Amino acid sequence: MTDAYEIVIDKIQESKLSHTDFDNLTFGKTFTDHMLECTWRDGKWETAVIKPYGPIMVEPSCKVFHYGQAIFEGMKAFKDDAGDVFLFRPEDNWIRFNESAKRLAMPEVPEEVFIEGLKTLVNLDKDWVRHGEGLSLYLRPFMIASENGVAAAPSTEYKFMIVMSPAFAYYKGDVRVIIASDYSRAADGGVGYAKAAGNYAASFYPNNLALAEGYQQIIWTDAASHEYLEEAGTMNIFVRIGDTLLTAPNNDRILNGVTRRSVLQLAKDAGLTIEERRISVNELNEAAQNGSLKEIFGSGTAAVIVPIKGYKHKDFKYELPIIEDSYAEQFKTALKDIQYNRADDQHGWRVKI
Amino acid sequence: MTDAYEIVIDKIQESKLSHTDFDNLTFGKTFTDHMLECTWRDGKWETAVIKPYGPIMVEPSCKVFHYGQAIFEGMKAFKDDAGDVFLFRPEDNWIRFNESAKRLAMPEVPEEVFIEGLKTLVNLDKDWVRHGEGLSLYLRPFMIASENGVAAAPSTEYKFMIVMSPAFAYYKGDVRVIIASDYSRAADGGVGYAKAAGNYAASFYPNNLALAEGYQQIIWTDAASHEYLEEAGTMNIFVRIGDTLLTAPNNDRILNGVTRRSVLQLAKDAGLTIEERRISVNELNEAAQNGSLKEIFGSGTAAVIVPIKGYKHKDFKYELPIIEDSYAEQFKTALKDIQYNRADDQHGWRVKI
Repeated sequence: MTDAYEIVIDKIQESKLSHTDFDNLTFGKTFTDHMLECTWRDGKWETAVIKPYGPIMVEPSCKVFHYGQAIFEGMKAFKDDAGDVFLFRPEDNWIRFNESAKRLAMPEVPEEVFIEGLKTLVNLDKDWVRHGEGLSLYLRPFMIASENGVAAAPSTEYKFMIVMSPAFAYYKGDVRVIIASDYSRAADGGVGYAKAAGNYAASFYPNNLALAEGYQQIIWTDAASHEYLEEAGTMNIFVRIGDTLLTAPNNDRILNGVTRRSVLQLAKDAGLTIEERRISVNELNEAAQNGSLKEIFGSGTAAVIVPIKGYKHKDFKYELPIIEDSYAEQFKTALKDIQYNRADDQHGWRVKI
Repeated sequence: MTDAYEIVIDKIQESKLSHTDFDNLTFGKTFTDHMLECTWRDGKWETAVIKPYGPIMVEPSCKVFHYGQAIFEGMKAFKDDAGDVFLFRPEDNWIRFNESAKRLAMPEVPEEVFIEGLKTLVNLDKDWVRHGEGLSLYLRPFMIASENGVAAAPSTEYKFMIVMSPAFAYYKGDVRVIIASDYSRAADGGVGYAKAAGNYAASFYPNNLALAEGYQQIIWTDAASHEYLEEAGTMNIFVRIGDTLLTAPNNDRILNGVTRRSVLQLAKDAGLTIEERRISVNELNEAAQNGSLKEIFGSGTAAVIVPIKGYKHKDFKYELPIIEDSYAEQFKTALKDIQYNRADDQHGWRVKI
């Protein structure tokens, strides 16, 4: 941490830690003792404040409620066997956060507020980072429009905040997906590449329809033709055909995933054949039918790597084979070994708190 | 009002009315004495409460901040010369609100909460509806996800609220527009037809770019080809070529405007030739070049009818002619005469409070 950046710290009187039942947590419902808050007003960021986690007062006319300027990042802190705490590629999240901010006409957050603020906050609540397989502290930096007023224009005030929640393995059970053929997540020239709150709200109704059919997620396709695979809303998508690893290229509809980028690097390190290109649903279905489709998996911060057990596209249903040399399992193991400080970190992804 | 539906009313001690400087209002910044709040919890709507306008307490993990489930309607109350107060087609807004709710995986709001709640609230604060040309009370029913928790899933709790703000003529000065050729507002299969908060946030950055070039708004085009006119974000768009009135047909990218629908009815009543069909930018540019393009105007609750003075599409710029028999002016006058109870209401659009 630099000494130059001042953060005001208002510590809790008594930690909630001893009253927290870690064996019966619901993901994202329990928060640590402290949170960070920093206000943008009169064209500049005020001093960041770390204070006890708790409610905030907002007017009903607060612009985030009406015009949806809200962005976030999902990150994790991991504890190793020695009790040291690490972040994973935090600069990448900070850079993407500011790309989201720009597209949503929100102010960019300085590195010292985002990164140093995050480090200071995690350090203060580091006892909340549990040690153990699949355990971590989920970090949620976010920004909301906080000006009061219902005129349809960008807000003149914003709040950047960080809250943190103890996490365990995010997905339980098998994941099967529907490949979208009617609904869409993002438009060309839209905000699909941003981690904008509205992208998630837009996906819930189609996802509910999928859940009702027994599928846990949707692989979105391009809105124009529904012919090409994009992403899964909370995950980027990888496909293995033969021994080639494929994933859709980044564009303005697809989130530029940090885990996605890490998987591609690990695949390169392992000498795998990688194709970052458009993948048509037809190609996927043909590979399924001729037996060359070996794996589909998702990558994301919350879930790390999620093997897809089966998919449905219109009337075509396919169950993925169970294979021995699963890329998904190899990437998951490799990523977790780096995150938990059990393996060499040759790309400098780990950042010690 | 029906007697059957109970609304709890907690009146203010002293009205803010006498302290309000109506001559120096900023649109959407001043609110009336009361607001309505109704909570959806455990699968049902609780009793609606009307209480003093003021801030609400929310946790930083409140889902609306993270996943953007937020929808709204814009409506107005008008006062006639006799001091009676009227709403304009409120059922239409209620129906559209629930269409938005469904698409955003939010619960539908019952008619008695939305309509009776609105009438009761407007009646209580009717002294805030000013009498005079262009004056009205802007009504903002909205709904937000209010569950606490950062898991990416639809909220289990919601707040429906209504706040009200004294309004005057919304647009000042000439309006010129850019016809979008890169950025998009909505995708096929997306949420463009819903009055979803995220749609507005997505438009602010491109709109800022337009403002920087001296254009006040954007006419969005279809995301797939940018060849067809859609809507302007806060307004539907009408084009007059010769004496034919054209507007884009409703689809899942375009807001089903109440003012749009009213204009089409008035045009039908007047015996005008109307074409509800896709309008290509090429057709518009050709009509501009051969002199048959007579008018472009927007329709919306906030602005009623907004004549467009000029437009830019890529390198092509066009200034609309000043004409004597403007459709825009005729529709504006006709709509305002109905809204302010100065003309017969043959379609039953006015609803007296």
